[in-house]
Amino acid sequence: METEIEKPYVIGLDMGGTNSVFGIVDQRGTIKSQTVISTRAYPDFDDYVKASVEALQPALDSIGGIENVRAIGIGAPNGNYYTGNIENAANLVWRGIVPCAQKFEEALGIPCRVTNDANAAAMGEMTYGVARGMKNFIMITLGTGVGSGIVCDGKIVYGSDGFAGELGHLVIDHSGNGRSCGCGRKGCLETYTSATGVARTAREMLANRSEDSLLRSLDPEKITSFDVFQAAEKGDKIALEIFNFTGRLLGTACADFATFNSPEAFVFFGGLTKAGDYIMNPIREAYEENCLSMYKGKAKLLISALNGSEAAVLGASALGWE
Amino acid sequence: METEIEKPYVIGLDMGGTNSVFGIVDQRGTIKSQTVISTRAYPDFDDYVKASVEALQPALDSIGGIENVRAIGIGAPNGNYYTGNIENAANLVWRGIVPCAQKFEEALGIPCRVTNDANAAAMGEMTYGVARGMKNFIMITLGTGVGSGIVCDGKIVYGSDGFAGELGHLVIDHSGNGRSCGCGRKGCLETYTSATGVARTAREMLANRSEDSLLRSLDPEKITSFDVFQAAEKGDKIALEIFNFTGRLLGTACADFATFNSPEAFVFFGGLTKAGDYIMNPIREAYEENCLSMYKGKAKLLISALNGSEAAVLGASALGWE
Repeated sequence: METEIEKPYVIGLDMGGTNSVFGIVDQRGTIKSQTVISTRAYPDFDDYVKASVEALQPALDSIGGIENVRAIGIGAPNGNYYTGNIENAANLVWRGIVPCAQKFEEALGIPCRVTNDANAAAMGEMTYGVARGMKNFIMITLGTGVGSGIVCDGKIVYGSDGFAGELGHLVIDHSGNGRSCGCGRKGCLETYTSATGVARTAREMLANRSEDSLLRSLDPEKITSFDVFQAAEKGDKIALEIFNFTGRLLGTACADFATFNSPEAFVFFGGLTKAGDYIMNPIREAYEENCLSMYKGKAKLLISALNGSEAAVLGASALGWE
Repeated sequence: METEIEKPYVIGLDMGGTNSVFGIVDQRGTIKSQTVISTRAYPDFDDYVKASVEALQPALDSIGGIENVRAIGIGAPNGNYYTGNIENAANLVWRGIVPCAQKFEEALGIPCRVTNDANAAAMGEMTYGVARGMKNFIMITLGTGVGSGIVCDGKIVYGSDGFAGELGHLVIDHSGNGRSCGCGRKGCLETYTSATGVARTAREMLANRSEDSLLRSLDPEKITSFDVFQAAEKGDKIALEIFNFTGRLLGTACADFATFNSPEAFVFFGGLTKAGDYIMNPIREAYEENCLSMYKGKAKLLISALNGSEAAVLGASALGWE
């Protein structure tokens, strides 16, 4: 008890392929300070840890030192909660198995918990965000890929190996003609409903249709989901249809996800949620149309209320309170 | 502590549409005695509870009375663990919401826990069966319908409303042309991989193909999955193909289920598992072919080792030890 009072902070680390963002966070979810280092500048993980500790020092000094920090939580691609390792992350400079938690514990002298980005986002939502007080919900991150963090009975589902919660790789088209996915298979949800999936849909629709569209003035290979959003804001019919198509696929998939843990809510996070109602309305419609009758009208379909740039750090930090 | 030693038994009740089977079970999973009453003979639930208590009396006397029973666990269609109610069960004589746990607690004076049949089966498998010691697995019951019980971190997933774990109603054909399901939607897994789904596949294949088959001597409307099994035993090509088709759909669905909780095992239970390798081989093949590469070679695909006629009672009884 005394220890808890003595240690009012946690560190959250959002480890991305390009940058690593550290935040010192209090129990209310206020980020007292942020520190950024380049992830890819350190091909040796030991150097990365050393650079992290050095970069954190001024921030630590300002809160009275590491003695006031309870733990560090890390959200990293392919971060494994059980082992504390980062395992074969395609987007990071370090190959194979990286003993991430162990190295940070040695360097900082405090406990370290690791998980992947989507699970960290779910932790953040449960600790500081719209899922506060919820015991059963599903977090869906809509970025370059589609990630998920599943919460059952108040706890993240890590599964037998620490790699549960990969709903972006649930196959929604089993015909064999689904879109090719980075995972080597076809028809995964993320090939349709990620930001890149939206751009892919845009290219397909523009190629297959003859209607006029603001998107036709762009180089098809360079269209982004943000371009589609901007066109939708101007009432562009094809752009609106792209979000409708995407949202309906996502809502239909959520209706399937409900059969797993009958969640109180689905919380969406990431760039695509900036499209607001353009994507949320078709998600909600398709969910209600497609879910089992006993689930109808029960689940909330929400957008994360955490500030986008802070959410990943907050999510990672939430692991530190466990 | 003393109480626990004093009460070495639990009662398990497998409540079916036709019959209700009670078993008095010890901690090793030995059923000391079984008692059966008709479920549908009592249109009033109070009468049913009264008849249950009367029928149980001799068995209770033989173990020294209700004082030696810790609790009663009930596996019932649409049984809700949180409320203890049976809610709108289509196959039972009682309509609407039945306060099942409350009535049994009042009548017997011991705690009562209620859940649905598939969750009870998962409890039984975890307590006495092939899933002993497992913390993350998925139970799949292949009967008239397809049920599921999902275990994460050693606990059944009940979800926000007590109705989680309905994987039989995950839609595997979103084309709009999937098979009609009793739930009112189309393309649910259970329309293909239940015993009735197998019979449906048999009728379709016999109608669409010209090859000879032992199954052609049967009235198509009366073909059962057991007929298909018997034909497969004799090397009938169409019968083997029916199991192959069914097993592959199930294995592919399990590859999708793995994205939820990355289970250590899938445990199959129910009439269809009598087909043994005819169905298990295609399940295993399709699972390994279709799962995400990080799940490959990890999950065991097992048949329940509990005696079919006892499994439901054992499963229900397992709730009594909680």
